[in-house]
Amino acid sequence: MDNTGYCSESFNSLQSGTSDEDMVEIAGATLDFSSTDDVPPLDRDYSSGGSYGVGDGPNGVPKLMDLLDEPVPGVGTYEDFNTIDWVREKSKDRDRHREIATKSKESAWALLKSISDAFSGWLLMLLVGLMSGALAGGIDISAHWMTDLKEGVCLNGFWFNHEHCCWNSNETTFQERDKCPNWKSWAELIVGTNDGPFAYIMNYLMYVCWALLFSFLAVSLVRAFAPYACGSGIPEIKTILSGFIIRGYLGKWTLMIKTITLVLAVSSGLSLGKEGPLVHVACCCGNILCHLFTKYRKNEAKRREVLSAAAAVGVSVAFGAPIGGVLFSLEEVSYYFPLKTLWRSFFAALVAAFTLRSINPFGNSRLVLFYVEFHSPWHLLELIPFVLLGIFGGIWGAFFIRANIAWCRRRKTTRLGHYPVLEVLVVTAVTALLAFPNSYTRMSTSELISELFNDCGLLDSSQLCNYANVSVTKSSSDSLPDRPAGQDVYTAMWQLSLALVFKLLITVVTFGMKVPSGLFIPSMAVGAIAGRLLGVGMEQLAYYHHDWVIFRGWCSPGADCITPGLYAMVGATACLGGVTRMTVSLVVIMFELTGGLEYIVPLMAATMTSKWVADALGREGIYEAHIRLNGYPFLEPKEEFSHKTLAMDVMRPRRSDPPLSVITQDGMSVEEVESLIAETSYSGFPVVVSHESQRLVGFVQRRDLVISIENARQRQEGVVSASRIFFTEYTPPQPPNSPPPLKLRGIMDLSPFTVTDHTAMDIVVDIFRKLGLRQCLVTHNGRLLGIITKKDILKHMAQMANRDPDSILFN
Amino acid sequence: MDNTGYCSESFNSLQSGTSDEDMVEIAGATLDFSSTDDVPPLDRDYSSGGSYGVGDGPNGVPKLMDLLDEPVPGVGTYEDFNTIDWVREKSKDRDRHREIATKSKESAWALLKSISDAFSGWLLMLLVGLMSGALAGGIDISAHWMTDLKEGVCLNGFWFNHEHCCWNSNETTFQERDKCPNWKSWAELIVGTNDGPFAYIMNYLMYVCWALLFSFLAVSLVRAFAPYACGSGIPEIKTILSGFIIRGYLGKWTLMIKTITLVLAVSSGLSLGKEGPLVHVACCCGNILCHLFTKYRKNEAKRREVLSAAAAVGVSVAFGAPIGGVLFSLEEVSYYFPLKTLWRSFFAALVAAFTLRSINPFGNSRLVLFYVEFHSPWHLLELIPFVLLGIFGGIWGAFFIRANIAWCRRRKTTRLGHYPVLEVLVVTAVTALLAFPNSYTRMSTSELISELFNDCGLLDSSQLCNYANVSVTKSSSDSLPDRPAGQDVYTAMWQLSLALVFKLLITVVTFGMKVPSGLFIPSMAVGAIAGRLLGVGMEQLAYYHHDWVIFRGWCSPGADCITPGLYAMVGATACLGGVTRMTVSLVVIMFELTGGLEYIVPLMAATMTSKWVADALGREGIYEAHIRLNGYPFLEPKEEFSHKTLAMDVMRPRRSDPPLSVITQDGMSVEEVESLIAETSYSGFPVVVSHESQRLVGFVQRRDLVISIENARQRQEGVVSASRIFFTEYTPPQPPNSPPPLKLRGIMDLSPFTVTDHTAMDIVVDIFRKLGLRQCLVTHNGRLLGIITKKDILKHMAQMANRDPDSILFN
Repeated sequence: MDNTGYCSESFNSLQSGTSDEDMVEIAGATLDFSSTDDVPPLDRDYSSGGSYGVGDGPNGVPKLMDLLDEPVPGVGTYEDFNTIDWVREKSKDRDRHREIATKSKESAWALLKSISDAFSGWLLMLLVGLMSGALAGGIDISAHWMTDLKEGVCLNGFWFNHEHCCWNSNETTFQERDKCPNWKSWAELIVGTNDGPFAYIMNYLMYVCWALLFSFLAVSLVRAFAPYACGSGIPEIKTILSGFIIRGYLGKWTLMIKTITLVLAVSSGLSLGKEGPLVHVACCCGNILCHLFTKYRKNEAKRREVLSAAAAVGVSVAFGAPIGGVLFSLEEVSYYFPLKTLWRSFFAALVAAFTLRSINPFGNSRLVLFYVEFHSPWHLLELIPFVLLGIFGGIWGAFFIRANIAWCRRRKTTRLGHYPVLEVLVVTAVTALLAFPNSYTRMSTSELISELFNDCGLLDSSQLCNYANVSVTKSSSDSLPDRPAGQDVYTAMWQLSLALVFKLLITVVTFGMKVPSGLFIPSMAVGAIAGRLLGVGMEQLAYYHHDWVIFRGWCSPGADCITPGLYAMVGATACLGGVTRMTVSLVVIMFELTGGLEYIVPLMAATMTSKWVADALGREGIYEAHIRLNGYPFLEPKEEFSHKTLAMDVMRPRRSDPPLSVITQDGMSVEEVESLIAETSYSGFPVVVSHESQRLVGFVQRRDLVISIENARQRQEGVVSASRIFFTEYTPPQPPNSPPPLKLRGIMDLSPFTVTDHTAMDIVVDIFRKLGLRQCLVTHNGRLLGIITKKDILKHMAQMANRDPDSILFN
Repeated sequence: MDNTGYCSESFNSLQSGTSDEDMVEIAGATLDFSSTDDVPPLDRDYSSGGSYGVGDGPNGVPKLMDLLDEPVPGVGTYEDFNTIDWVREKSKDRDRHREIATKSKESAWALLKSISDAFSGWLLMLLVGLMSGALAGGIDISAHWMTDLKEGVCLNGFWFNHEHCCWNSNETTFQERDKCPNWKSWAELIVGTNDGPFAYIMNYLMYVCWALLFSFLAVSLVRAFAPYACGSGIPEIKTILSGFIIRGYLGKWTLMIKTITLVLAVSSGLSLGKEGPLVHVACCCGNILCHLFTKYRKNEAKRREVLSAAAAVGVSVAFGAPIGGVLFSLEEVSYYFPLKTLWRSFFAALVAAFTLRSINPFGNSRLVLFYVEFHSPWHLLELIPFVLLGIFGGIWGAFFIRANIAWCRRRKTTRLGHYPVLEVLVVTAVTALLAFPNSYTRMSTSELISELFNDCGLLDSSQLCNYANVSVTKSSSDSLPDRPAGQDVYTAMWQLSLALVFKLLITVVTFGMKVPSGLFIPSMAVGAIAGRLLGVGMEQLAYYHHDWVIFRGWCSPGADCITPGLYAMVGATACLGGVTRMTVSLVVIMFELTGGLEYIVPLMAATMTSKWVADALGREGIYEAHIRLNGYPFLEPKEEFSHKTLAMDVMRPRRSDPPLSVITQDGMSVEEVESLIAETSYSGFPVVVSHESQRLVGFVQRRDLVISIENARQRQEGVVSASRIFFTEYTPPQPPNSPPPLKLRGIMDLSPFTVTDHTAMDIVVDIFRKLGLRQCLVTHNGRLLGIITKKDILKHMAQMANRDPDSILFN
């Protein structure tokens, strides 16, 4: 348990500390909803067919009631770091739904309840959208303010950021709208001037100090209060959505600390973004709000539907792209995504986007993070540089994943991992020291991307737009003809090249540190810089050589034929695609930024190339790589299992092992079962008719068995070690002096999944994926032969891929 | 077989007539790819683990070879009107893929083959996109021309439509750009003038005649050459995609005839659209192009991936909305939609959209069918009328579905169905006679929608924009302030109200006739008219009563506060949503038309309301209703199975029935098996160890068994009626004089799916849906008890919903 991800050292301490916000409430949750206050005991009609969970016998045959027919608290719940059984959870929810539907016909009050139940999902979505949107707005505003705090302070009020401070100032011109007397840099405040080497050093020093302060606060808060708040959170959310339990990962503390430390981490100027963590924040909101509704609190499968929607909300607020967010959730994060969830996710994503817009943190009254408007179309020949950018993005993605994983593995295995605070401080110091001298790394990464995406207009005063002013004769609105680059542009190119190298290297060590850190923005920055460089290069090439064959015909002198901003955008898309291996969602997010279908083709060409190149160099995206690094039991839905093995090759026991531990349906005493539990560590046992026939009756979970026997020993009179345990429907008459029997049919799963030993493993993997199973029994000609668990499958897959099968850590 | 949908009378004749374009080629297709020319016989390593299909024994133990170890042609294929086995198909494809991957390491040529195999999917998508885009362009252009032909002809060349005819004419002013001397109405040509009652009657007459001619041609072509070309095709495509075989439904003939008759039907002025049929056309393209690639030709599951993408292409070209098209395919049509298909669909949809744009049939150089641009934002209070439109849409949707289904049922059960040509002619005559006098019904429905969506600008000369010109003082670009309606607007309102009633009624009888007919456009027209009426009403209300509390604050005089075009759009969305029950895809399609996220909220509000209202009045959308009407075996993926029954309640044999027909693995002779086949009509038989133990060994398909025995009798020496059939791995030594045994282990499915008798039916339904099963065996304590087929489940579901279980017609 001591190498379980970024936050390894605190996994154990967590389980007690945050139990109040657990994903599963052991105290309150039961397998059967009939124990809750608002639902009366099962009526005859319903219980007559109970096959799953704590029901009673089939066909409604009356039988002896004993204590264990009442649901035992805790039966049907899961332990931490275990996989849920989707089929059981969904079946539970259908039972609940059926119950409500049946009752709704009885009284108006029940009908009202049924309707409110039906609409509670929508209400929850609305709340998730509102809360996430508001939080994202708060994060944006705070991060802006604190980022500017590194450079100076507003005299009107320290809580204004640079832009707001100068907003209403009358003393600034449009050209110099960044400079206003109320905004003082630290040098101005301390040494009274902003010029000269001393002032520069002063500013430099303050910049580094603030950065160190912010990052120190961030890492300390994470360490002290919520170790789960570190990282981007997406690998863990993927794992949770696939049906894994990580208690407290989406709890109140994580939300609070992640929100605060995210602001701190972003403001510290580290090479990280807030987009991935925003997904985590939105999922925390979703999980916490689930507690308001019994329907979602008590059902792991239903809760995961909400979390899928919350992931969409996260991306929606991160980029202002609701459709892209929904597709991101569908493509990248979710495991089980029914159509109902699609529609609800879309609703929640829209609510969140509009909440964010009403807060208006980007200040452009647009929905999107990077609003761009291009004026000139692209030419078919430009696909060549776009594909080149795709290749660059793919190579960068593959390189980044390898380097980052190697570095994270080193952190886990060497002493480096023992000094997380020091690590963060060192990286921050290096980042701040190297970033300050270069204006493109000094500004926040999202500002940088914004500037790189921007198409140079007439009024732009930025360095990047400093073109030599050839006579602009055409009055045609916004479209500027290609012009020769001015001196500033060449300077900018140099600075950008340096910034590129810097970002390339620093991002590798930054992602995975013990602060909230997203990958989207740094990846996009790398791509945007590369794209802009190529774009400006192409532009100058086209300007000076417009008589070349390739340019002739579409790039006459004085025309605006190359848009460097578009290249930056394509480059950003390619790099993000290379790192995350997103496809449709990426293109749609970018489409929502521009709003024009025009530019989908370049984006798509770059995304496709980048994905192909990156896949050729290494199959996994960064999230899958981190999941594997941490040993989570995640069954990748995208990857095909392509080996020709059979179920009999994977199942336990192996040929040399002792036979499968089974329980007979009527032959064993409490003592025997207890010793079986003590001797083995399996998470469940098949129940058979007899040891000889090995004919399968059902399956019983270890946890349920332990809880039930304990419960019976305490509450049921006369149950001793010699009591016999029956899983049969009827208990045969006992000899007069024997202790009363223990009837446990209720906790047995009467419909375990079985496959034959000749089933091809690709089919078994498909079944596990599609149905979300935890385990599956293997039979041969009707006899029970063995068992396959999700972990067995993952180990088998690791083995087939020549990886260490013991890297799969959890059940 | 004689009440199978619109095209009932020709189902039988089809099967021979169009066998050359069957979905499954019986002659060429085999279960195992190893029989094809380009793949050598299985190597040892591969065959050692064969569990599915025609393999040999497990564990690679050498055994006697006989003829039947070679795959028998036809084994593993399906009969018409049968359900495919998704698991088997996917497993086949994985085998194929594995084979190629293994070989690719051996030689450069094989590697090249492997790469070309990997890219063949993309190439196919490209071709589907190009072909569908081109066809859609052709259809658009022809339909435009022929629609105009009803009114007049161009003297420059009869092949010009009205717009093109007057395009280059210098003699027209901008105001009267529809009138040019080259374009002659029929009255002008025949009686020399366009004025006076006689000319009007002449035009009227010609209009009706052309309409009758077009619709007569359409229905005759459909009847004579491709009965499957009628209707919208979407219900059948949904069924096919869910894994059903309808031979020839997506064949060459259907494509050709559907393309031609679609143009005719649209031009005839009937109340139908071309959007649904375009999906059918695109799917035909996809299916036909599949034949170019072995990978897709021979695998029903892979082919369905292509068809899913083709459905996206269809909507993409219909509306010019590629993202919406992909979501439509995901939400509405597809059954199995892996992420890989999502990405490919998107690619194909984009290619198709750009192909269509380069043909430019809409003439606006835009991608979309209805391009709209609104200039003023909407106010929160306007959500009330939008929700009202949603309610209207929901009610109309529910009413339409009921009325249309009742009419279609009447057509099927009474003598009405025997006169399809007459029916079409009568409906056309009524439509044309009633439509001509009203200018809003005389124009083509898509033109009408275009006009209704349009926001009135300064230069608009249409009747709908004839507002009293109060002094327009503001020079602000395009945004016009609210104005009092002029006389023409009131006239238009009357005409629109009449058009609304007309469309409401005529659409009910039109949809389902024996011509290609889509529902999107008529539904949208109904909603657009209602919306525009409400919008103009609101506008006038706001103009005359801007001091009312509700208008005060946001609707000052002289401001442009109500956009009637937006109301039309919202109304169209609501009505389309009510009829089809689309959600996300509908909103996204509409979003792509406007391009502004601004208007998503009104669209969403209307869509949600409409769906809720319509669902409350009747669960099914129009496509599901038609699927049920036709008795297709379609397991609705959206609907939850909510009854508390068990597998034992659904399985066959029932308690009173004779026991299940099984085959023992080593005890039966050819004669016995043949009599079993002759006596029963089951589509498959379980193989058990012995009749006594009922321990399951495998499952064998009836079709495979029949083909194999026939084949053996013909080709294998000595196989006679007394030969014993063995499904075991090793054949025990036979008595000296007995005939040689027949070994059929190869055709047996060694991994049949089983569930226990206590499995809840909701879980069984889930398994069938998610894995795409055909049948599932039921066991109790390891003994075989019964079988559940997809048809059993559908019958059971029908029974639980108090419907006639015999309405499920096919397997």
